[in-house]
Amino acid sequence: MSDPVVTAFNVRDLRWPTSLQNIGSDPMNLAGENALGYLELHTDSGIKGVGWSFSNGQGNDVLCTAVRSLAPRLVGRKLSDWTKDMAATQRKFQSGQIRFMSPERGVLQLATCAVLNAIWDLWAKSESKPLWRLVADFTPEQFIKCIDFRYLTDALTPEGALSMLKNRAKNKEDRLKLALQSKAVPAYNTSVGWLGMSDLEVKQKLTEATQAGFKHFKLKAGLGIETDRKRLGMVREVAGPEAVLMVDVNQIWDVDEAIEYMPKLADLNLWFIEEPTSPDDVLGHAKIRKALKPHGIGVATGEHVNNRVMFKQLLQAEVKCIACHKPTFFR
Amino acid sequence: MSDPVVTAFNVRDLRWPTSLQNIGSDPMNLAGENALGYLELHTDSGIKGVGWSFSNGQGNDVLCTAVRSLAPRLVGRKLSDWTKDMAATQRKFQSGQIRFMSPERGVLQLATCAVLNAIWDLWAKSESKPLWRLVADFTPEQFIKCIDFRYLTDALTPEGALSMLKNRAKNKEDRLKLALQSKAVPAYNTSVGWLGMSDLEVKQKLTEATQAGFKHFKLKAGLGIETDRKRLGMVREVAGPEAVLMVDVNQIWDVDEAIEYMPKLADLNLWFIEEPTSPDDVLGHAKIRKALKPHGIGVATGEHVNNRVMFKQLLQAEVKCIACHKPTFFR
Repeated sequence: MSDPVVTAFNVRDLRWPTSLQNIGSDPMNLAGENALGYLELHTDSGIKGVGWSFSNGQGNDVLCTAVRSLAPRLVGRKLSDWTKDMAATQRKFQSGQIRFMSPERGVLQLATCAVLNAIWDLWAKSESKPLWRLVADFTPEQFIKCIDFRYLTDALTPEGALSMLKNRAKNKEDRLKLALQSKAVPAYNTSVGWLGMSDLEVKQKLTEATQAGFKHFKLKAGLGIETDRKRLGMVREVAGPEAVLMVDVNQIWDVDEAIEYMPKLADLNLWFIEEPTSPDDVLGHAKIRKALKPHGIGVATGEHVNNRVMFKQLLQAEVKCIACHKPTFFR
Repeated sequence: MSDPVVTAFNVRDLRWPTSLQNIGSDPMNLAGENALGYLELHTDSGIKGVGWSFSNGQGNDVLCTAVRSLAPRLVGRKLSDWTKDMAATQRKFQSGQIRFMSPERGVLQLATCAVLNAIWDLWAKSESKPLWRLVADFTPEQFIKCIDFRYLTDALTPEGALSMLKNRAKNKEDRLKLALQSKAVPAYNTSVGWLGMSDLEVKQKLTEATQAGFKHFKLKAGLGIETDRKRLGMVREVAGPEAVLMVDVNQIWDVDEAIEYMPKLADLNLWFIEEPTSPDDVLGHAKIRKALKPHGIGVATGEHVNNRVMFKQLLQAEVKCIACHKPTFFR
């Protein structure tokens, strides 16, 4: 493997006028402009490390400023200065003076992700592997060394996580083999159901998606029972009764609204409701999950404010992964 | 009252080299540079609305960029466009595209505070009152109209909050009368115990503070039992046995570390430990509080990530205010 030195970086404020076709529209955000705070690390060996975080348009300039404020410390350093202890690297970016700005939240969390992902990208390229392969080839010990356990040790210690990984190693090998054989990993399609789409557009995209082999679909919802039932009904019609359906309302409800609304869609056999309320509301999500369980509807969260400590909360509030029914923390 | 129109704004990145005297030093941040993202709203009536948020130096440029990205929407609008419904105003700054950037967290939350506080400052000045008086003169109905209840209604509805306020009105009148008589409100002193200070400096500042009438002191701690005991002992010595002592470790511990460490200081009769661990860890704080209660030590939190939903969590996790023993949410 090579050990490139970062010689320079550049940050791009990339935006797409997605609102023109209502792509990405959701109940919280009827006209989003997909955008990226995009970071490129240039190195003396010619390979380029790329990392970025997504936004819905407004505030992308703030995100880029945050990335520009963090990236300079990479310049002039060897890749191995960071990769020899990725846990310490992550912690370095989230400690000290910056702690006062909540670096594990919002803008600074997104900016830190762009920087750390650029380092991971550089690491994989320096070993001429795709990132998934780099990580899959880690020994359990190497994997654990990449995790910062600060604030987690009352729920999970490095030793505990290590033995957990070792116990799971065999299953992991099987899953890996399967993935390598099928040259594919399970995925769901969420681009068939943006709110701004006409029924015709939804049907067209659905047909394309089912022909492409998708069996799992996630639709935006929360625009009223009738509208939701109509759109979800179309998916059943085109994708068939075996199709697995999920809905996402992007935080628009209060806790009790979610508990009142969702049972009215229960007969449509939905796998889960994503982000029914504020992502901060761990106990609210637990309450919603408990109320919807008898209706066979799970709860998904974690797209926003998905930091390590919040996931520990989900574990301790006994919010389980809707797929494996293990605490989301271990998902 | 006048209804000024905002004609322009300016944002200043203000910083003080506080690390030179170790002012503001704490266990998480041994050399902070106190800084402000400082916003001035200029109006056609000559009065100026000022709002700011604090940081510890690094990232203050990001904070200022965030304020600059929010403030333009005030220009050309009348003050009353915002103050006629402050709940809607707050919500407007935290909805839509910006929702993807966690506007109730970190940098964007701090920036929103600077903007909203500048509006409050303009409101008070336009009525020729100090802000505390403007708010104290509100009817319960006017007060409730300033609160955005989104995500809170499973714990507190506008109607519930209104009747609560009405029931407390008399006590409020008494407290107000008392405050006006004594021309003072209770306060504690936290500038006697920055980590970087020598013993002599601490003793000098303590003597000044006690002579100024302070009876409550909060010290930075967490540098080891012996060091903490020595520093806290000095405060007892100078301020006397009646002095009320608090400690603050600024998030340096894991949950179990806090539970193991604090009982060793219990004989010093401490009122509370502030931010023992990550501010995101609501259930962790509840666990620490339960463990320290038998030792007579309370838990304080909320300096960071103190948004409405997190306070609702504290209520539901039964974290009580260390002063009034009511849920912190109602503090």
